Amino acid sequence: MHQLLSKIESAHDLHKMSVGELTTLAAEIRDVLCNLLSTRTAHFASNLGVVELTLALHSVFDFRRDRLIWDTGHQIYPHKLVTGRYHEFSTIRTKGGLMGYPNPHESDYDLFMTGHAGSSVSTVVGLKSGDDLRGEGDRRAVAVIGDGAFPSGIVFEALNNAGGLKSDTLVILNDNKMSICPRVGGMASYMDRLRTTPFYAGLKSEVVKALNKVPLLGDPVERFLAQMKEAVKAGLHGGMMFEDLGFRYLGPIDGHNIVVLKKYLQMVKDLKGPILLHVVTEKGHGYQPAAADPVFFHTPPAFEDDHGCAVPKKSGGSPAYTNLISEAIGNAMRRDSRVTVLTAAMCQGNKLEKVREEFPTRFFDTGICESHAVAFAGGQAKTGMRPIVDIYSTFLQRSYDQIFQEVALQNLPVMFTLDRAGLTGPDGPTHHGSYDIAYMRVFPNIVCMAPGDTYDAQRMIDFALSLDAPTSVRYPKANAETLPGERSPIELGRSEVLRWGRDGLILACGTLVTECVRAADRMRQDGLDIGVVNARFIKPMDRELLERALRECPFLITVEEGCLMGGFGSAVLEAASDLGLDCSRIKRLGIPDRFVEHAERAELLADLGLDQLGIISACRAMTERCQSSSSMQANS
Amino acid sequence: MHQLLSKIESAHDLHKMSVGELTTLAAEIRDVLCNLLSTRTAHFASNLGVVELTLALHSVFDFRRDRLIWDTGHQIYPHKLVTGRYHEFSTIRTKGGLMGYPNPHESDYDLFMTGHAGSSVSTVVGLKSGDDLRGEGDRRAVAVIGDGAFPSGIVFEALNNAGGLKSDTLVILNDNKMSICPRVGGMASYMDRLRTTPFYAGLKSEVVKALNKVPLLGDPVERFLAQMKEAVKAGLHGGMMFEDLGFRYLGPIDGHNIVVLKKYLQMVKDLKGPILLHVVTEKGHGYQPAAADPVFFHTPPAFEDDHGCAVPKKSGGSPAYTNLISEAIGNAMRRDSRVTVLTAAMCQGNKLEKVREEFPTRFFDTGICESHAVAFAGGQAKTGMRPIVDIYSTFLQRSYDQIFQEVALQNLPVMFTLDRAGLTGPDGPTHHGSYDIAYMRVFPNIVCMAPGDTYDAQRMIDFALSLDAPTSVRYPKANAETLPGERSPIELGRSEVLRWGRDGLILACGTLVTECVRAADRMRQDGLDIGVVNARFIKPMDRELLERALRECPFLITVEEGCLMGGFGSAVLEAASDLGLDCSRIKRLGIPDRFVEHAERAELLADLGLDQLGIISACRAMTERCQSSSSMQANS
Repeated sequence: MHQLLSKIESAHDLHKMSVGELTTLAAEIRDVLCNLLSTRTAHFASNLGVVELTLALHSVFDFRRDRLIWDTGHQIYPHKLVTGRYHEFSTIRTKGGLMGYPNPHESDYDLFMTGHAGSSVSTVVGLKSGDDLRGEGDRRAVAVIGDGAFPSGIVFEALNNAGGLKSDTLVILNDNKMSICPRVGGMASYMDRLRTTPFYAGLKSEVVKALNKVPLLGDPVERFLAQMKEAVKAGLHGGMMFEDLGFRYLGPIDGHNIVVLKKYLQMVKDLKGPILLHVVTEKGHGYQPAAADPVFFHTPPAFEDDHGCAVPKKSGGSPAYTNLISEAIGNAMRRDSRVTVLTAAMCQGNKLEKVREEFPTRFFDTGICESHAVAFAGGQAKTGMRPIVDIYSTFLQRSYDQIFQEVALQNLPVMFTLDRAGLTGPDGPTHHGSYDIAYMRVFPNIVCMAPGDTYDAQRMIDFALSLDAPTSVRYPKANAETLPGERSPIELGRSEVLRWGRDGLILACGTLVTECVRAADRMRQDGLDIGVVNARFIKPMDRELLERALRECPFLITVEEGCLMGGFGSAVLEAASDLGLDCSRIKRLGIPDRFVEHAERAELLADLGLDQLGIISACRAMTERCQSSSSMQANS
Repeated sequence: MHQLLSKIESAHDLHKMSVGELTTLAAEIRDVLCNLLSTRTAHFASNLGVVELTLALHSVFDFRRDRLIWDTGHQIYPHKLVTGRYHEFSTIRTKGGLMGYPNPHESDYDLFMTGHAGSSVSTVVGLKSGDDLRGEGDRRAVAVIGDGAFPSGIVFEALNNAGGLKSDTLVILNDNKMSICPRVGGMASYMDRLRTTPFYAGLKSEVVKALNKVPLLGDPVERFLAQMKEAVKAGLHGGMMFEDLGFRYLGPIDGHNIVVLKKYLQMVKDLKGPILLHVVTEKGHGYQPAAADPVFFHTPPAFEDDHGCAVPKKSGGSPAYTNLISEAIGNAMRRDSRVTVLTAAMCQGNKLEKVREEFPTRFFDTGICESHAVAFAGGQAKTGMRPIVDIYSTFLQRSYDQIFQEVALQNLPVMFTLDRAGLTGPDGPTHHGSYDIAYMRVFPNIVCMAPGDTYDAQRMIDFALSLDAPTSVRYPKANAETLPGERSPIELGRSEVLRWGRDGLILACGTLVTECVRAADRMRQDGLDIGVVNARFIKPMDRELLERALRECPFLITVEEGCLMGGFGSAVLEAASDLGLDCSRIKRLGIPDRFVEHAERAELLADLGLDQLGIISACRAMTERCQSSSSMQANS
């Protein structure tokens, strides 16, 4: 069916292809993408947008030797298809199959496993520098970075450094006018201007127009200068901003025209110094519904094509934590005018569209600029506002230093809502939220929480707002269940005993509480009386509960969907040790000290012993261990 | 003596002062600075450089209501002197005295405790946004940021966001042509051009000149455009880069001329939208030796003025860890051409000047761009090089996400040398390296080490280079001692038993090993046989030692100069718990869960029970606890 694609053995084959063949190949790739992506959730619009760019790159460069980094990495599908992975492509994002991001274990054509935005330019500057030092300066270095990732601070740091080093690096700005959400900020407007007045068109007429404008400053010299500057700015773009940093700017060029792409890539291939090539693409290009709604089609659910309209195949189920939290945020904003919400290009992912519409002046999307978002929130909080920073667990890693300095050190009441905390599933290692418990709890002043169910989720947002301190609430990419029975209100540093256990106790932190309850139910059927406690707080730790548990129960098992190193279980050990309690009867379940691959979240939980069976088997093992040690003590 | 200064009660008094009085005041402030700074190590050159700017700001704005953030914060001294702290100024940077950075606990004029560079613009955008939302839009918002901090990614993120929001914020670029070290990168050259061709001078002649230049591209249209662009670039600056982001740019103006400063501040005070005012200052202005050598005079040791030459008052002592490590790095670079070293504007602080001179092509200073530095190192390592990232513990926090994605996830052999790990002394909470053990060890693949003395320091660098994995070596801002006796070579995951102890064991991690040995010596004189183990490795943990210790010794005390939450002691608890060992006999000493104030390192160690006396008293307490619990067991 895919006559050309199925025969490509290496991307080097593209060097011999005619433009006609490359065009056919592009159509075949789009066909593969549309067929596959109607079967599962995957990155879609961004991949449709880079088909021609991918083919042009591989037909001009030789990335067996040259260096290519796809920033963020979710636009890697066409690249995978032409670098020997067509035949296994249907496995993408499934357990044991291809990753949805670059993966050096799959192919030498994938240099870095990426997933977090913005670091490609730095990596490429490093690759070039290393190759030069090793006497392999003939290797060319190319970064492809989207306009959504472009305002990330690290990109600017890298451009600045490359400009200073005069490093021979090619940065391709893949400008599709979109982040995952529509773009924001001064850089976005700048790119718009670059696109609308390409190649210095209209310079003269703009000068005349601008000279008629009303001056803004009083001083006559200032006035003249302001006019001149406006005039030149309006008529002349050509990427002066990048030129000012030491880059040569070319473009914008049509990213769907293979002839133009090849011509420009050939031209810049052997130019010296840092080059920025501005390529304009359309997210979702070639599939009308996706081009018309690229936000929905960023990672759409599986869908059917109903006469050119995409119809999601399924929907419903219990509410996702993300929805519960965004509703709770909305409720808080309705009640309290001090509450604002900040996101970093994740308005859709965090389900904040409603809040954005209802409270346009209290909603802030900083773009993919997590560091800035947190420091910004610190400033707002200082004035008496109550900002909520709503960012995925894995991406908030980029704000570690601002959580430290701008929030915790100032003891300001900023709330962090950490979506996608724990195993996120098919995105894999770059996207799992494994580290937030470990990175949040080390800072003084912060109150760290994790809801165990729907009841907790809504109330924890309100509770956090009632505190005059930095707070965090972490929750998984999963549907929230509702625990049965009467519930106890949320109190600072207090866990909730759902059921006490004569034979052992599970202290569950957030995401897996309901699974632990099910495990306990099943064990009870087998005559083992295991209690379950909904920890609710990571910090401050419920020491009273801990003392009682180790006094009354044969063992304590901690369960968390986070890294075992420095995580919730470690916090329990620390508290137990401080209290002089015996930790040998504590067992910690969580994410082990390795990077966890991609697969469905349920598959991963099972693999890591964090599902019902795993929890039961850990309880059984601890029961045996305690029995044998107590019989040893009895015998001695 | 300081007639004007001594009478200022509030910065508001400056509103009534004439330019003549302000000039006198500037002289008095310089006198205070020079007198004080010859008595102790403090930030010097940067403070001399902002005297007039500080006075102009306070005489135009009213920062009882308007908002002022000093980026990085070490240039705060003149601000402190005119905001009610003249009379206690002599206490600065001493225990219980004034901080050397902004401190909201000292004065309402200090809004944020800062110390890490670059976040001021974000904070100010946040402050402005909060004030606007609260209906207090009349409060003006000002950030003063140095050109050294300016290339930090977060600054760009904030400018981009402010430009998009059209926020009424004033960013003052304090351009002294210096970071702590001389500046680097494309932005530095850009600022140089801004300074050398201010106000569009020479536009016409530059156009003519450029049209005669040789074209760089083949295409005739491209050629024309390139010529035009060069022409305009050369003649026209006026901060187009900032204008492109949505800022109005003004300057550069003379930062030591109070009349000019006041005129421009008055002009921009009530302008709408984001403004960037470019102020040129001289680091060390007014004290010739400091102006001539601003690198030395950034934080000079106490010095005497010997006929206009500064002479450090004291020198000598045992070698600092910083020197040992930089020598070890130099040795490795001599031996192995794959080794490179990267610093983030800390060439002097990290004592890398020699290495920079000897290996100019393998030395990289990225400027204050820690995120980029780490991703850059990842790229270099991928080519087969062996980069060493030499950054202070507290500043490497800014690379958390790159340590995760670009190094640990790729399992690349990047080495991190973490200077200033632990308590850094008079700089205070923003500068203590408290969190690196907790943030480093959570990532898979990384080998984490801490030298116990001079022997370890040199060998650990070589050992780290022998591994094919990411590594880190942390060491304090302190002199290194040499442990007596025969030493055992460094082996992966192996601690070094310095002396076994019948009555208890101290497992010391890095910086405090020698102090623990002294404590043990003293206890032995009192008949208590306490052993000391030099842990060497934080990760992987020496589990064998742990088993033996808990089997043979009544108790184990862990000692670290790092946060107790998630730190080395926690790693010990985790390992003990995994091995089913009793943690109730483990006591952890380290930095508690609060921000530690400024004071001499020795004072802080004593306060936190981490000096000899503290360690001894912890051993005594554990001895008693173990005796009473064993007698309880005997009685039962």
